[in-house]
Amino acid sequence: MMNSVINQMAEELRKAPKVALFSHVSPDGDCIGSMLGIGLALEALGKEVAMINPDPIPRNLSFLPGVDKIARSMPNPLPETLLFVDCADLQRVQLQREDLPAEAVILNLDHHISNQNFGKINWVDSHAAASGELAYALIRRLNVELTLEIAANLYTALLTDTGCFKYSNTTSKTHQIAGELIDAGINLGDIHHFVFDQTPMVKLELLRRGLNQLQIFAEGQIGMMTLRKRDFEESGAEESLSEGLIDHARTIEGVEVAVLFKESKPDTIRVSLRSNRWLDVNRIADSFGGGGHKRAAGCTLHVSLEEAKQMVRQSIEEELKLGRSH
Amino acid sequence: MMNSVINQMAEELRKAPKVALFSHVSPDGDCIGSMLGIGLALEALGKEVAMINPDPIPRNLSFLPGVDKIARSMPNPLPETLLFVDCADLQRVQLQREDLPAEAVILNLDHHISNQNFGKINWVDSHAAASGELAYALIRRLNVELTLEIAANLYTALLTDTGCFKYSNTTSKTHQIAGELIDAGINLGDIHHFVFDQTPMVKLELLRRGLNQLQIFAEGQIGMMTLRKRDFEESGAEESLSEGLIDHARTIEGVEVAVLFKESKPDTIRVSLRSNRWLDVNRIADSFGGGGHKRAAGCTLHVSLEEAKQMVRQSIEEELKLGRSH
Repeated sequence: MMNSVINQMAEELRKAPKVALFSHVSPDGDCIGSMLGIGLALEALGKEVAMINPDPIPRNLSFLPGVDKIARSMPNPLPETLLFVDCADLQRVQLQREDLPAEAVILNLDHHISNQNFGKINWVDSHAAASGELAYALIRRLNVELTLEIAANLYTALLTDTGCFKYSNTTSKTHQIAGELIDAGINLGDIHHFVFDQTPMVKLELLRRGLNQLQIFAEGQIGMMTLRKRDFEESGAEESLSEGLIDHARTIEGVEVAVLFKESKPDTIRVSLRSNRWLDVNRIADSFGGGGHKRAAGCTLHVSLEEAKQMVRQSIEEELKLGRSH
Repeated sequence: MMNSVINQMAEELRKAPKVALFSHVSPDGDCIGSMLGIGLALEALGKEVAMINPDPIPRNLSFLPGVDKIARSMPNPLPETLLFVDCADLQRVQLQREDLPAEAVILNLDHHISNQNFGKINWVDSHAAASGELAYALIRRLNVELTLEIAANLYTALLTDTGCFKYSNTTSKTHQIAGELIDAGINLGDIHHFVFDQTPMVKLELLRRGLNQLQIFAEGQIGMMTLRKRDFEESGAEESLSEGLIDHARTIEGVEVAVLFKESKPDTIRVSLRSNRWLDVNRIADSFGGGGHKRAAGCTLHVSLEEAKQMVRQSIEEELKLGRSH
């Protein structure tokens, strides 16, 4: 069945002289890498290809071969054949169905379980770790040579959506494809460096300030990091740059729960929670009106920074006391 | 030819009722994981197995299935069949040939190009990213079921010697084996957490101090971090815990060269150098009587901390000015 939908999609692409490819807002390595991989493959088949993403390309993906071909808006006129890559629905590209011609042939390639099957052909495989796995299979089916440029894009797609083959979505298929891409001659060192090693200096400044305010509680089981309003102001860092800082607290030996307190305004404290192996931080976030998942959750408290720290710490200490079995 | 040496080693192991396995001093995930994987497989074949490592097991490997079976010293009497795993020579296990019985059947499984071929059977494959790849092939050849315990050990071997599949030694074979190990049912999240996420608190304290003394020069191309003698004294951290800290300077956006200055004694400054894409830090280390590789080198200067920083900075700035083409 999967085989038949690949064939249908390949067939639609083979007969189209022009194709427009779309990837989602807040782009990541998977949607950009998969779109570029397929786009370059279609160009190799002599198609006229447009690639569209509504947002700027993140700096750590600006090295991807072909990235300059991506436009912010749709070409006019729009080709008949439209391929949506890694998009669960049309809102992910800031479109409504009415924005597209009624006769458009919509192809939908994705790995999100929430995909709305909005296409004429819907190839949605939620077992794939990344849309890059489907892009790889499609390119193989189209009989296009796996050039260095295509391989670098697809490898980046796999790499980013699996957290460097770490997340539990990683399967033997992911690894098998990664191996084929390495055989195409990609430079592993360069790709990993470009994707993962480009820390903005202001982000490191936030880390410095976070470490200077790191506290350990509950005999080493809780790691709490704080960023005050003045830490953002004085460093000139946007709040979004604090993403990932909490991992420095989470990965301390013995820590089960990590918390990052961000003082957005004097009485608005954003709280991020992470756990390593057993504590359900979703329960804690939920008790403060927030939510998330077992291992990653968050909430916003409208109290002072000190009060927020007190309240969350107490709540975690109670959960820790109840222990793993409860 | 490779096939025939695997068969010979498998044959020797099949006919031995007792086997002692050795792995090298300063153990890492590859030597321990490979030794345990093979050791558990031989036990499954009903052998009496001894596993030896002269050093304590690093804490981040203490989760490995079977790790409690590893002894610090040799059993007495020693079995006739001895398998050395990931050891380039006998010195790597603090042994001389005279320490072993003349009639010992020495089997040598390794991936280091410098291997001394000290065994009766020498299976040395320098194209393998990790000895874990050879261990996997051996276990397959022995027709032992790939249990969860064996798979977790072999996966850890691959993971650590490839830096999470990042280093250029990673091949399609590495990925293919990693996929097979995932199919055996290992818990990726747990393994990555145990191996990579156990940062000792004093190490984070060194990072905090290093970041507080981070300096950027040459329009962002040089990142210099300093750890004074008092930073080690006050934090209680051993010098070895500063390993890896330099990567925080190396991975700053725009940085080509990172330097870490460690004040071992008031007039003994250990300098670590890393570069990202082109600058040959070996040249710089060499000019100060040190050495290493193009992308990672080091030297020791017998001057004050401030003088050392001045000298090394000047030398790097000159190289940067000469530029990439020279």
